Amino acid sequence: MGPQTPAPRSQNIVWHHANVSPDERAAALGARGCVLWLTGLSGSGKSTIGRRVEQLLLDRRAHAFVIDGDNVRHGLNRDLGFGPADRTENIRRIGEVAKLFSEACVLTLTAFISPYRSDRAAVRALLPPGAFVEVFIDTPLEICEARDPKGLYQKARAGEIAEFTGISAPYEAPEAPEIHLRTAGRTVDDCAAEVVSWLAAQGFLSA
Amino acid sequence: MGPQTPAPRSQNIVWHHANVSPDERAAALGARGCVLWLTGLSGSGKSTIGRRVEQLLLDRRAHAFVIDGDNVRHGLNRDLGFGPADRTENIRRIGEVAKLFSEACVLTLTAFISPYRSDRAAVRALLPPGAFVEVFIDTPLEICEARDPKGLYQKARAGEIAEFTGISAPYEAPEAPEIHLRTAGRTVDDCAAEVVSWLAAQGFLSA
Repeated sequence: MGPQTPAPRSQNIVWHHANVSPDERAAALGARGCVLWLTGLSGSGKSTIGRRVEQLLLDRRAHAFVIDGDNVRHGLNRDLGFGPADRTENIRRIGEVAKLFSEACVLTLTAFISPYRSDRAAVRALLPPGAFVEVFIDTPLEICEARDPKGLYQKARAGEIAEFTGISAPYEAPEAPEIHLRTAGRTVDDCAAEVVSWLAAQGFLSA
Repeated sequence: MGPQTPAPRSQNIVWHHANVSPDERAAALGARGCVLWLTGLSGSGKSTIGRRVEQLLLDRRAHAFVIDGDNVRHGLNRDLGFGPADRTENIRRIGEVAKLFSEACVLTLTAFISPYRSDRAAVRALLPPGAFVEVFIDTPLEICEARDPKGLYQKARAGEIAEFTGISAPYEAPEAPEIHLRTAGRTVDDCAAEVVSWLAAQGFLSA
């Protein structure tokens, strides 16, 4: 640079960063993200169906990922307990993380009881229109209680667990879920296939 | 089912879920994830370089995503302030989220000052061997301060910001970063290309 050359106005211009827009990202990857928010009673099959959907999507080379108690309660939310405020914070953080995954064009599945409409509505409000897909895992309480994979219903009936969803605390069923999965008498594969079909019909899967 | 047929031992067997293993996921997607942890002074170019790397990776159809202040401080970590405990919690949560992204086979970039070795070591410890890639954005303080894109150095020099990294609080430079990016006199593209080359050399990018 000669002495007559004016100094650059600002080196900041060169170094200013431009974020990739959602459309640019979707076009680059040939994929859109969304959040499949699985909600239902304990033992209803949320994680099981979520994991099976994930497998079916990965088989199609679609980026899918399940966020559930297995990978959140011991990690991100390890500092949270089970009181009302911590439960709400638990769902809030999961919603924020699911939002980031969805922005990254991942087909994101979450599997939490999330019994309160207001908590689910708050997550819906975080996301752009169409990106929050409420999936009601509708399994009758009798079936959930008969399965009782972790023995929690037994403890709840014995009064050893307070405020157990479906027994001593309410489950507020979705009023207009995008997917209403009635699981009684059906196989996991059948339920999972219904979710994948919905995603295909909505254009979330490339051919 | 006839009356002689024994009842199924447990419906739980059918409904038990198997998580996809990291190897199965990587094979299905033809991609491995990792966390590129960009660390450096305020104004060193972390977000700018991170976003450029992301763009280069997306151009190759590789799933990449930047986690930085833009999408975390107003979302997941909106409840956190800037005191010491909250700063550590900020980095902890980002580490946990980055871990989830990496597990999802996303090439994950984070862009936070993260001045303390102990905080960065804690994130490294969360991840499997080889998945934490420390990227030292090594930009001399004079350059960062001359850029001062947010006017923060000026405020720190005026005593309006307490404990500002590099001025009145320490920056503990990485001792053995996987990538040591000396940015002085170089363009953003040049710096970003070095990171992409490293990823290619390490087998993170398909041909």
